[in-house]
Formats: sequence, structure tokens, C-alpha cells
Amino acid sequence: MSTNLPTPPPTEGLLSLKAHLAPHFQALESYLLSQKTAFEPEIHPYLTHCLSSHGKRLRATLLFLAGWEGPAIAKPELVKAAAIVELIHHATLVHDDVLDGAALRQGHPTLSALHGPVVAVLLGDALFAHALTLASEYPTPVVCRIVATATRQVCTGEIAQTFHRDGEAISRSAYERIIDLKTAALFAASTELGALIAGHSTPFVQAAKQFGQLLGIAYQIYDDAADYLADEAAIGKTLGTDLLSGKLTLPLLLLLEALPNVEAEALLAQMQTRTLSLEAVRQLFSTHQIAVQVQARFAQTMDEASSLLAPFAQLKATEKLLEAAAQIQDLWRRAGLPAL
Amino acid sequence: MSTNLPTPPPTEGLLSLKAHLAPHFQALESYLLSQKTAFEPEIHPYLTHCLSSHGKRLRATLLFLAGWEGPAIAKPELVKAAAIVELIHHATLVHDDVLDGAALRQGHPTLSALHGPVVAVLLGDALFAHALTLASEYPTPVVCRIVATATRQVCTGEIAQTFHRDGEAISRSAYERIIDLKTAALFAASTELGALIAGHSTPFVQAAKQFGQLLGIAYQIYDDAADYLADEAAIGKTLGTDLLSGKLTLPLLLLLEALPNVEAEALLAQMQTRTLSLEAVRQLFSTHQIAVQVQARFAQTMDEASSLLAPFAQLKATEKLLEAAAQIQDLWRRAGLPAL
Repeated sequence: MSTNLPTPPPTEGLLSLKAHLAPHFQALESYLLSQKTAFEPEIHPYLTHCLSSHGKRLRATLLFLAGWEGPAIAKPELVKAAAIVELIHHATLVHDDVLDGAALRQGHPTLSALHGPVVAVLLGDALFAHALTLASEYPTPVVCRIVATATRQVCTGEIAQTFHRDGEAISRSAYERIIDLKTAALFAASTELGALIAGHSTPFVQAAKQFGQLLGIAYQIYDDAADYLADEAAIGKTLGTDLLSGKLTLPLLLLLEALPNVEAEALLAQMQTRTLSLEAVRQLFSTHQIAVQVQARFAQTMDEASSLLAPFAQLKATEKLLEAAAQIQDLWRRAGLPAL
Repeated sequence: MSTNLPTPPPTEGLLSLKAHLAPHFQALESYLLSQKTAFEPEIHPYLTHCLSSHGKRLRATLLFLAGWEGPAIAKPELVKAAAIVELIHHATLVHDDVLDGAALRQGHPTLSALHGPVVAVLLGDALFAHALTLASEYPTPVVCRIVATATRQVCTGEIAQTFHRDGEAISRSAYERIIDLKTAALFAASTELGALIAGHSTPFVQAAKQFGQLLGIAYQIYDDAADYLADEAAIGKTLGTDLLSGKLTLPLLLLLEALPNVEAEALLAQMQTRTLSLEAVRQLFSTHQIAVQVQARFAQTMDEASSLLAPFAQLKATEKLLEAAAQIQDLWRRAGLPAL
């Protein structure tokens, strides 16, 4: 094996799957790096940063598991599809970082910080376009349709979220719709593509898609809960970023529902003026038992997801997807959130 | 006929084609407006601006002409493809306006000015993604491939141009490569798609693609020439915008070649510090007969384009594409540029 091959990315919280997926991820990382030459030479200098930056590769993981056939097998069609969903995800992060003016992501300088917002916007566009070019290499246009539709949904979710910032009271259903679009749509596309490309039956492809959708919702609920309620040392991230940016997520929405109207309005006003401290919110969460309510919503979504796969218990892919679900529950536990 | 149907867009410089294409454009504008409901409702308020804003619709024009079958016929597949190339073009303009901080385009407030850069970046993304979703509705993935590849090339051209700003001396070949990517790629995709979807033979599809590519190059040369050399009243646009933004285009590159090294370096330095006046440049152009050289390059490109279609003289589409070429030559003349 060449020593130049990149090491598999960190798959935080998906520990027992990590070993099984190692050959898949090795193939994915090699494939992504090989894509550099498929772009026009003018932008090669800016691409290395994009193609090798490792996140959790959650979407690729779910795609590989929905198309699971065995630990040693990494079908080229599945690897390409995993690369597509990661490129789309990466493009959205590149644009997010421009829009947030973020200097760092996962401890590394953002593309926007390195090369300026102009290059970052255009390179994000080029990554989107390349992902769709790869999608057009499948014999059926269905792959393009799934990828393009999910991309449009992710952008729409981000726009909707932008317009719900700054302490505007939104309904629970508006929150659910936002996370459905901005996070769950690409999770759903990943499991749908994995199952489809592995040649599974239409009923399983549909179930895998809905499973991915619910897992995406659960993952976003976990992420939103962790930002207020986690043990900072356990997750290794600064808490309170949503509070700081005026983003209303599930824990705060549940708190607003629990408070008398006058107190809820005062809280929203404090949020708008950024005078609400994380400590004060955590105290209110404790008084109103918000953590347990968030946990219930998370657990319910995970249960719904798992039950979708019940009719397909005989499939290897089902076993693996349920393992992934179990490991997302493990993420929740290890963050120091209330026991499930 | 419903009075709610939009009027055909201005097709500046393509006057005699305008009447022939009226039914096509009526179908195109209706189709574009109908696309609003295909987007998630969250972004409907921002879409009207995007879907009804009329440019010259040059790319749609070329697509219709390459697939020409008759004035009354506007095949739904051709209308959809015309909508796709216009959506891609519009998405790139939306992002350009964010990056340039432009407040107006063609006299109307830009999306970025109306709703802020965050919405403009994300809505541009959603337009790209929707165009690709429409492309995936054709039975073959080839349409997606053509559209996605052209989109990547346009973005790459913009990135390359960004890095060649501020008076850095670039070669003629670098300039040609930039306009090939940022303008000609989508012109080529338009003529290729028109010919392909109309069911023409592969040799004609390839010839139409290359014709579109050369017409795109010629059009960009016209645009770059007009910015320095046109009669301001005749084209109704402010001249000197490239000089103001430090963009090196063909007229200035030819001037730099004509000047002794020391003078060329002094000119570049003046350009970097934005101390070069349009009047001074026009004086130098006159002394060194630059206009005639630019005109020669434009005319040569137009000739090459036309000769590509010689083997297909019997096709109606050829006749129409040659009419389009003649009208782009007419644009040149009417701008007060040196006679062809």
C-alpha cells in the first residue's frame, strides 16, 4: 500500500464502524484527491484545501452503509457517489464560512480567510458544479436529480434560517422545516443514493431515504442540544455559538413555550440585544426541565428512523444503518447530555 | 392570449431575429415564471426578481436558433433547456453582483442590494441547483453533464480573472483562456444543447458547440472593445468600467504589446494605482491603431465561427445561426466601433 494514501478521516462517534469502513474511506480520500486534475488548471492551487479537508464524513458514511455489501468491497460507483455528497457538503460549508466571516473551521483556516471571499464564493460554485458533473457520469439522470434537489433544499434551509435569526419567535414547525431542509435533505440523499446504486429494491431505497432524513433531523437536534447542554470538555467545542448568533433552536424554542408570555418576550428581547448569557439560559433550562424534553424528541426521531427499516431486517445494509443510528445515540451520551 | 404573459425581452442588436423568436420567448418567460412554484415556498419572495429580470437572453437565443425548426414551434424540451442556460447565467450574475458589491444591474437594484449578500449567495446556489434539477429531467444524463461542466468552467474563468486583476501583466493567451471559460463555455453549451435536443446529427451538434464557443469569444471581444472604444451615447452604457476595476482586456493588452517596455511598465503601474484616465488610454489607442487590431481579432473569430457551419448549409438551424452572427456584427457597428 502506498504511503502517500491519506489516513482515514476521524469518524468521531462512529468508532466501531470506523474499522469496517477503512477501505471505503481510503478509496474515497484517494478519489477526492484525484479529482483535482478533473478541474481546469487555473484553480488547482485552491483545490487541495477543499479536497483533503476532513470533516466527520457523516454523509459518506451513511451512503456507504446504505449500499453495504461487505467490509472489503468499495464499488467505484459508491465511492464516486460518496465523493459527490461530500463535495456538495463541502461547497455549502465554504459558502457558509464566507457568509459568517469565519476564519477557522475545525482548527484550520477557512478558504475565505486564505484566499478572500471572492475566490471562496466562486470555488464553492465550482465544487457544486463538479459534484453535478460527476453525478452526470452515471447512466441514469436520477443521480443528478437527487443531488441537485438536495442541494436546492440545503440552500433554501439556510435562507429560511437566515431570515429567522435575531430572536424572531418562530414556531416549532418552522424550526423542524428548517432542519429538514438544511441538514436532513442531504442525509436523505446520501442513504437514497447508497441504496439505489447498490441495486436495492425501490421499497428499500425509499425506506433508506426516509431513514436518512430522520437521522439527519436527529443529528441536528443533537447538534443544537449540545450547543447549550453538552459538557464542553467532552465534546471539545465552545458552547453557546447559536445564542451568540441569535439562532433559535429546539432547546430555546421549548423554553419559550414553557415560559409565561411576558417572560418569553423578555427573553427574546434579551436574545436580540445579545444580553442573554449562556449561564442564565442553562439555569432556565434546568428549572423547566428542557433537557429531558429535547432528549425525548431526539429519542423519538431515532425510534421512528429505526422502525422504518424493520421490514428489511434481513439485509446487511439494514444491520449497518442501525449500527450507525446506535452510534449517533452514543454521540449524544458521550456529550454528557441526559441519558436516553 | 392572456394579457398577463410577459412581453418578450429586449434583444438588443438581434432585431430581425426578434420577431421570429417571439413565440419562443413568450414560452420561455412563462416557463421561467412558472418555475417559482417548483422551489420550496420559503424562498418564493426572493424569486420573482430572479425569474423575471430580463437581460438580452443571448444564450437562450442561440439555443433556440441551434435547434431551429420554425418560427411557430417552441418544443417544450427546447424551452426548458433555454430556461436552464438563462438560470445558470442569472445565478452567475447574482454571485458577481455580490462579489462586486454592485447596487444596480441594467438599472434595477441587484438581489444583493435588496436582500443582502447572504441571501444573494444562497439564492444563486439555489438557482444553480434548480437549473441542474431541470437538466436531470431529460431522459439522458448528457444534458446535466453539459450544463454542470459549463458552470464549472464559468466559475473557473471568473476565479482566473480575479487573480489577474490589478494591473498584473497577463499574456494574450491567458486573456483568451479566461474569456473562453467565463463567457464562451456557456455560449457553447447553449448551441450544443439546442442542436442536441432538436435531434441533429453528432457532427452538427459538435459544429454548433464550436460555433457557440467562437461566437462567445467574439461577443466578449466586442464587450471588452466597447468598454474602451464605443460611442457612449450609441451603446447607452458608461465606458471605462474595466479600467476602473483594473481588469486587463484585449485593447489594453494589445497596447501593452505595442509600447516600448518602459512605457508599458509605467502604464501598468498607473493602472494599479488607478491613475490612468480613460481619455489618456483612448489617446494611446488612437496613436497605436489598437481599434483596428481589436476589430481584426473580432472579425477573424466571426469568420472562423461561420466557416464551421459551411458543411451544414442545408439546415434551417445553420441559416438562423448565421443570422445571429450577422447581428452580433451589427452590434459592433452600431456601437460606433471601427468598420468591419
